[in-house]
Amino acid sequence: MTTTEITVKMVFDRWNGALQNWNNLLHALPDEALYTAIAPGKNRGIYLLGHLIAVHDDMRVLLDLGEKMYPELYEPFLQSPDGVTAQIPDAAALRAAWYKQCEAFSLQCGQLAAEDWFDKHTAVSAEDFAGEPHRNKLNIIITRTTHLSYHTGQLRLLK
Amino acid sequence: MTTTEITVKMVFDRWNGALQNWNNLLHALPDEALYTAIAPGKNRGIYLLGHLIAVHDDMRVLLDLGEKMYPELYEPFLQSPDGVTAQIPDAAALRAAWYKQCEAFSLQCGQLAAEDWFDKHTAVSAEDFAGEPHRNKLNIIITRTTHLSYHTGQLRLLK
Repeated sequence: MTTTEITVKMVFDRWNGALQNWNNLLHALPDEALYTAIAPGKNRGIYLLGHLIAVHDDMRVLLDLGEKMYPELYEPFLQSPDGVTAQIPDAAALRAAWYKQCEAFSLQCGQLAAEDWFDKHTAVSAEDFAGEPHRNKLNIIITRTTHLSYHTGQLRLLK
Repeated sequence: MTTTEITVKMVFDRWNGALQNWNNLLHALPDEALYTAIAPGKNRGIYLLGHLIAVHDDMRVLLDLGEKMYPELYEPFLQSPDGVTAQIPDAAALRAAWYKQCEAFSLQCGQLAAEDWFDKHTAVSAEDFAGEPHRNKLNIIITRTTHLSYHTGQLRLLK
């Protein structure tokens, strides 16, 4: 294995492990639990789920995998705090969207070669990338893995 | 920059960013807040702090940086749940231990060359490592970064 291949394996092992931790929790929590605040006065589980879908939809664009699958979730789950948007999709709809998005993402990521992950992401210019080669696609996976873990620590409190 | 150097930079940027997020919160929370449960019936902030020190002490051993600095924290913060051990260090003592440990860790990590991070950690045999080269020192940083983020999402609830 080359250093590039080892690196991509390590980063994706952690990304997939973090997704698995989230999914194990999500699977164990009934819909009623998702409508509960993780702590008094804080976000509800349903908001965290919608928030992750919105953030991961943005990853699709940054990684040049295609368009957002659920652009309608940007406003209620990224632009607005929990409880502000009157009409949000219900738990069943968000669960279905989440799993569909995860499946598409995993399939598409699997088509990239290890070295492709060191190419620039779409939000950095070729000029800037020349001097800042760490602003690559793999870095998007690294930063979103900790984002996912941050919110998994919160969802865990509903159990 | 080589791929190895870019990789080590990305992983440490995220590790240091995650530490900064935790430290910003820790700095903003008074001691009284640390003695509060992050949610009803869940761990207190003080337990999360002691838990992180114990886990990061174990990283010192895995990365061959030296001995644990606070081995006495293993039992109350890793082996036992919150509230079980009668005598634990107070918030001021744990804050001091945390910052001292962070400083030593950062200094020692800075002395390794980028390629050293792809060497095996101390819990894997040379034999196993030959077939599983991802079980290296950098992977310890990657996995503990998500662990830190998971608990930062919880500490955040005390604010």
